[in-house]
Formats: sequence, structure tokens, C-alpha cells
Amino acid sequence: MPSRIYLDYNATTPVDPAVLEAMLPFFSGEFGNAASIHTTGQNARSGVETAREQVAALINAYPQEIVFTSGGTESDNHAIFGMFNPTNYTDVNLISTVIEHEAVLNTCQSLAARGVTVAYLAANRDGQIDPQHLRDLLREIPDTSLVSVMHANNELGTVQPLEEIGHIASEADVYFHTDAVQSAGKLPIDVNALQVDLLSLSAHKIYGPKGVGALYIRSGTPLRQFLFGGHHQRGFRPGTENVAGIVGFGKAAELAAASLEHNATRISALRDDLERDLLQRIPQSRVNAATAPRTPNTTNILFPGVDGEALLIALDLKGLSCSTGSACSSGAIEPSHVLTAIGLIPAEARSSLRFSLGRHTTRQEIDAALLAIPQAVEQLREISPNYPQGNVLQKLSQI
Amino acid sequence: MPSRIYLDYNATTPVDPAVLEAMLPFFSGEFGNAASIHTTGQNARSGVETAREQVAALINAYPQEIVFTSGGTESDNHAIFGMFNPTNYTDVNLISTVIEHEAVLNTCQSLAARGVTVAYLAANRDGQIDPQHLRDLLREIPDTSLVSVMHANNELGTVQPLEEIGHIASEADVYFHTDAVQSAGKLPIDVNALQVDLLSLSAHKIYGPKGVGALYIRSGTPLRQFLFGGHHQRGFRPGTENVAGIVGFGKAAELAAASLEHNATRISALRDDLERDLLQRIPQSRVNAATAPRTPNTTNILFPGVDGEALLIALDLKGLSCSTGSACSSGAIEPSHVLTAIGLIPAEARSSLRFSLGRHTTRQEIDAALLAIPQAVEQLREISPNYPQGNVLQKLSQI
Repeated sequence: MPSRIYLDYNATTPVDPAVLEAMLPFFSGEFGNAASIHTTGQNARSGVETAREQVAALINAYPQEIVFTSGGTESDNHAIFGMFNPTNYTDVNLISTVIEHEAVLNTCQSLAARGVTVAYLAANRDGQIDPQHLRDLLREIPDTSLVSVMHANNELGTVQPLEEIGHIASEADVYFHTDAVQSAGKLPIDVNALQVDLLSLSAHKIYGPKGVGALYIRSGTPLRQFLFGGHHQRGFRPGTENVAGIVGFGKAAELAAASLEHNATRISALRDDLERDLLQRIPQSRVNAATAPRTPNTTNILFPGVDGEALLIALDLKGLSCSTGSACSSGAIEPSHVLTAIGLIPAEARSSLRFSLGRHTTRQEIDAALLAIPQAVEQLREISPNYPQGNVLQKLSQI
Repeated sequence: MPSRIYLDYNATTPVDPAVLEAMLPFFSGEFGNAASIHTTGQNARSGVETAREQVAALINAYPQEIVFTSGGTESDNHAIFGMFNPTNYTDVNLISTVIEHEAVLNTCQSLAARGVTVAYLAANRDGQIDPQHLRDLLREIPDTSLVSVMHANNELGTVQPLEEIGHIASEADVYFHTDAVQSAGKLPIDVNALQVDLLSLSAHKIYGPKGVGALYIRSGTPLRQFLFGGHHQRGFRPGTENVAGIVGFGKAAELAAASLEHNATRISALRDDLERDLLQRIPQSRVNAATAPRTPNTTNILFPGVDGEALLIALDLKGLSCSTGSACSSGAIEPSHVLTAIGLIPAEARSSLRFSLGRHTTRQEIDAALLAIPQAVEQLREISPNYPQGNVLQKLSQI
């Protein structure tokens, strides 16, 4: 059995050795401030601009449409806040979905608290929103400033019909943002095919460093400034550029583009095996949003009668890392808003675990996981008051 | 002569080898998401919490009062925006100064555009604000939500009488923010002695990585959220923590605290020699804000008759990196707002260069700079129409 099995690639990924190698010179030798005119600065600038080309290429954008940020959360905040006038939040509308990442959802809620009318598209049992619902809403609500619909869901892996959504938004002449943090590197992304105006990316989900992301801003999109300061990145994002991080992001984007198809094929085969065998080995288990189009690496499985958090900890003790859902809400007691939004009752949401595979996942690891997970589920069910067959007290009373 | 002389440490610093060494494990082995419950995540969390203690120690704060951000600009934006209610910007006041970094100044201006009344304290010829002026303003303007006065100025190195300002703000029961990005690691900082409620820091100015900073938030300060998303950092700053960057910042803070006094003594001696000898060798040159208390490493010198940008480029060709002022505005054509604010006419501001020394600056480099700078100034003055003694056309007409 491998020393540790990491099945939490949706939470974060290790930095690829080639990415780290690309970054290293910019910590010491080429440590300049990319805003400085002198050679030390211009060498750093050159690294940043190469990265801008690499990230743009991943999503078929122009380099000048890429703004580097501190990560997906900042990109989402900028994209959404940036489409509203901070001196007049009334009589304007925003449409999003109930299954967004908290970086979108809580930004929407903050705007709602400021007076913006926010409508959330529902998701069905398969984690899919209905494009017709969006079409109807856009007809009902004429002054919509922005539609924000995520590409792939972080907890379920479900992929939205973005092309259709982009088409509907475009026809209604409404700007369209997508959080593509979980789809980048896993699915091909073409900002023109998707007809998207704003798109959020994060480096650390694609084997790049943490603390760096990007916002794609289609030319002509009337996005307002979000952070205020110096003239960096043509005024769109002030603050000394995180040169090493940006260079790493660029390299990670290049690698992701080059290996996307190969990885998707290999990883989805492992994911499918893991899923199928777990369902076979663990009675009553089932995959959440099983029949929806999903990213190749993600499965979210409901183990009735088991507390997800307890299972996560039991698996951790066995050397396996996974998640109860979004890593961001791991500390929270609330059941996942995504799982409840697709119709799971809180007890079901609390009994679900996410396994997300990645570039380094091996067949051997999946085999080891297929031993560890059923074993842990069985052990927990034996002491669970919520799993009748395994209720110790019930068993005792039957003696 | 050394291969390249870097005298632009106020723009950015190289990452200390010990800092990089501390960071490296968190890119690959300990690459977890610090928000994850499992061991991979908790190892990352542990790195972040150690760094929080190290950064807190640098400014005599409690670790729980430190929130990590993406840098000084975000810290300044959060500190200032965060003290205002986004649904009611009228009838509230903000006091800052004319010599702030653009991250503060442009944030103030954005708030002014939203309806906040902003008053800017003037600076004298020596780059100093007058505490009495603040006392008067606070008496005149009763509903002041925040006073924001920088600790050390990035362009001049001038240090404000923060203890007195903190005392005045405290007496008036007004919250007090300081941008300490340029003073950290150069001057001792004690948040209690300064009576400051909010304080901005940046890692890359103290030999840490770019893309990471911190905001000190005194317990009880009613700071609002700025970015919206997950529950990271107790809700104060959502977004996956930049673990490697934060760990590096922590190590950099530890090193800065340990070597502060030694570096200040050594570097100020070199700075004083550079300054004195340049004034001797270059006719009419003078130091801006010469008699003010200044950080040990910075000097800003006016070379009449020379275009600062041309001089910067001439020096760059000779292998010397310096700045026309704030690195952030290096691409801008406007003369430095700091230099004009302290009474220089635009032509004087445009003829000034900043030399900022650092931990790796050697006596040999200063000696080389003392050859290169006078030579470059002389060459430029010979062809300058603004320097009578060197006006080629004038000379020709005298033949």
C-alpha cells in the first residue's frame, strides 16, 4: 500500500516539479518588481507576460484579456462586484445558481444585502440547472447586470451546459461570468465557444502554486476596478505582481493544456472503477448526481448510516485523504449547500464523501482505497445508531 | 565592479535563502489545503499557524490578530473599505495624508467618489505631517470612522510620528490604520506603543515572497469583510491560504526581527556615505526630506537639470537598478505625488531618484555606485537643455 493516498485533488494539487523549476529563478536571481523600469524589473516583467500568454492559451483568450489575481476567490469577487455600481445597488439584478462555490454565493449574498436583487437558478437531482429557467428569468427581469453560472461543481464534478447558457445570456445582451476553477485543466475551455465575458481560474487546482489566480475579462466588458492602488496590470489589478507564482501558473497552464486529454482518459477510467467497485462492495451506497456530465476525476458518494466527517477521519487514520465536500467548508457544521440543493436531506448530505483523483493517482492507490473505504464504512456502521443493521444498542437489545 | 548593483530594495527584495528553504516543502510534500481536515491539510495548517506567530511577533501582536492577505495593497484596501458601511457612505469621514502609497490614496479616492468625506493631512518640506493638524481636524469633523497615516514613506523613507498620531486618534476614540509596508523590518514596530488598530504588512519588502501580506486587526476592531467566500481565517479572509507564501512570510518576519538592529546600523552607514559623497561629487544635487527621521536604507536625491527617467535608464545600462520613486508608478508620466506634495515643482520631482539599500548591499557596490552615478549625471547634463552649464546648443551658440 502506498504511504499515503491523496484523493482530494479538487481541494488542492501538489505543485508540478516542472512548475516549481520554472518558479525558482524568480525568488532570487530574477527577483525584480515587474513594475520597475530597470533590467531587474524587466526580467520579471518578461516572466509575467510569458505566463499571461500561457494562461490565455489554456482558454483560447488573448493575453491582454488575462488579469492575474490572488486566486479564485478574488477573481470571483472582482468579476461579480465589478459589474455593479457601488453607489447604486438598487434596481439592478444578478442571476446565479444555488450550487455555486461560496466565493460566488457569498459575494452574491453580500450584494443582496446591499440592495441588489439576486435570483438563484435551482439545480435538479443531477446537479444541473435548466437553461430554460434562465431564459425565463431573463425575460422576467429586464435589468440584469450579470449572470454567474459555474462551469464544473467542486463537490459533485457536475458540468453545466455552459455553451447554451452563454448563448442565452448573449442573446439577452447580459454579461456572463463563470467560475471555471474546477473545470480548468480537466475539461477543454474555449471562452469564445462558451460566449463567456468573465471567467475565474485558480493555479493551485491545476498543479500550480497557491495564492495566484486569474480573471479573464473579454475586451469591452465594462468591469470596474475592485482593488485600488498602483497602475499594475493596466490598472485592473494593483499590487506588486506575484512574479514567481504567476510564472508557475503559466507553466501549470501550459502543462495542463498539453496533458488534458491524456489525463482525462486515464483518470476517468480510475474514477469509474473506484465508483463501480465501491457501490458493489458497500451496501446501499450510491453516487450523487451519477448520471450528469461530470469532470473526469470527481465522485461524490453517499454512504447511508455513516457520518461523513467520522468516515473522513477514519480514512485519514488509514492514510487516505478525501473530503466531505468543499474543502472550504470543511470546518463548518452545516451540511453541504450543494448536496442539499440537489435534494439530499441533511442526513444524506452529512453521509456523503467526495473522492477527487488527479495526475498522480495510481491504480495501486485505487486498489488500496477499495480496501480501506469499505472497511471503514463497515466499522462505522457497526457502531452507528443511524444504520439499523449495525446498531449496537439494537443488537444488544436483541440478545 | 559587481555584476549588477541593486539599489531598489524599497521596490522589492530577493527572497532570503532560508525563507525559500522553509517554503519548499509546502509546494510538494506538504502541499495540502490548510482548510482540509485530513493530515495532508493539517500539516499545511500547522505551517500557516507557525507563520502567524512569527508575523505577530514582529509587531508585538497576538497571532489571532493577524490575517494573511495577498499583499500590502489588499491589506490597505481591506483596512480602509472595511471600516465603512457599503450601504451608507454619506455622513462619514476619513482622514489620511497626501503622501500615502497609492494603495491607500486611491482607496480613499474611491471612497470619496462613493460619498465619504475624505480629508488629507498635508506634509511639510521634510515629508512630515503635523499631529496638531490631525488634532484640529478630529475636533472639526466629529464623525470620523478612520485615520490612515503611513509609517514610513516608500519614496522618501520619512517616518511619521506614529506614536503621537496613535495617541491623538485613541483620545478622539477614532480607529487608526497604518501602512507599515515600508517600515517593517527596517524599524521596530509595536502595535501597542503605536496604539494602532489596523496595520498593513507585505512579505516581499522583507525578503519574503511576493503575493503575500498581512493585516493586523486589533481585537474588537469592527472591521467588515472585504472578500467573500469560504470560512478561511475565521471568515476574515476567504480563499485557499497561500501556504508556501505564508510560511515564507513567517520565516522572513522571524529573520527580520532577529537582524533588524544589526542591519539598520550597517545599512544606514552605507546610505549615509552614499548620500554624502554623491552630494560632494554632483554639483547642486540635494537630498529630499534630508533632515526628517528616515528609514535607515532610503535616500531620495534631486539632480537638477537631469531627467530622472533618463538617468535611471543610463544607470541601468551601467548595471545599477534604482527608481524614480514608487515602483508602482514607474510606468506613469505624472511626477511623483509624494515629491510634489512636499513642495517640489514638477521639474524637480522629475529630476529625483530614489536609492534604497538592503541586506545584501556591500561597501564595494556603494563605491561602484559612487563612480557610476556622478558619471551618468554629468553625461546627461551635458546634453540637457535644462541645465545651463551643459546646454550643448547654448555652448554651440557661444562659439
